[in-house]
Amino acid sequence: MHTMTQAEWTGFANHGTRTGKLATTRKDGSPHIAPVWFLVDGYRLVFMTGAGTLKGKALRRDARFALCVDLEEEPFAYVLFHAEARISEDVDEMLPWSIRLAARYMGSDRAEEFGKRNAVPGELLVFGQITKVVAHSGVSD
Amino acid sequence: MHTMTQAEWTGFANHGTRTGKLATTRKDGSPHIAPVWFLVDGYRLVFMTGAGTLKGKALRRDARFALCVDLEEEPFAYVLFHAEARISEDVDEMLPWSIRLAARYMGSDRAEEFGKRNAVPGELLVFGQITKVVAHSGVSD
Repeated sequence: MHTMTQAEWTGFANHGTRTGKLATTRKDGSPHIAPVWFLVDGYRLVFMTGAGTLKGKALRRDARFALCVDLEEEPFAYVLFHAEARISEDVDEMLPWSIRLAARYMGSDRAEEFGKRNAVPGELLVFGQITKVVAHSGVSD
Repeated sequence: MHTMTQAEWTGFANHGTRTGKLATTRKDGSPHIAPVWFLVDGYRLVFMTGAGTLKGKALRRDARFALCVDLEEEPFAYVLFHAEARISEDVDEMLPWSIRLAARYMGSDRAEEFGKRNAVPGELLVFGQITKVVAHSGVSD
């Protein structure tokens, strides 16, 4: 098993259309999880979610979240992020990120269309300041 | 977007070497996440973890957990499970599940080797009784 460097976990997390599995804590203390489209930008995670979703409400209540990205085949690998969310509802700030996120997951030819559709009031732009990273490759070696 | 039937989400979650992303709540109320090898067996999720790991300790403190399985490419799909853990430390009960889990993720020729290595004191066998499922395919269609 190999511990990834920052360059390695950044490249791994931003590779292709790997999604982030976002864990938050519900009001009753139970865990919640959902996949998100995201990007690693230095020591920040960037993603969007609806203000009315469970994860949106959870992040407003408690900024702490965890996010997992993994390789689901041999030799298996994973990156676990712990981060603290700062939330923006500024649609102008949201649009370029929304387009970048759509470019990653839907391809550059559909990025503008999807990006504009998602950067609207009621959506939240989340910047997650990374506080801890656990990143291992070659897990089953 | 299509809501999966039980047969669909069972097949989806048990397909190939898809891993489960397990979310639990830490002692301080913050969320924790980690990938696990798992199986869906009817309305149960079955996986193993170390008694000394954060997720093992979290599940002993609070049986509630969430687990996510997703398809990381178009048209995107995901299954979100909510479940309650029952933990067994009986190595005899553990061994057949450990072998089945290894067969799924490492292949049948290495299942016995990996299964025996993992079914030892200090490991926990977790049966998660599913309490809620959210399962969608064709998310980006």
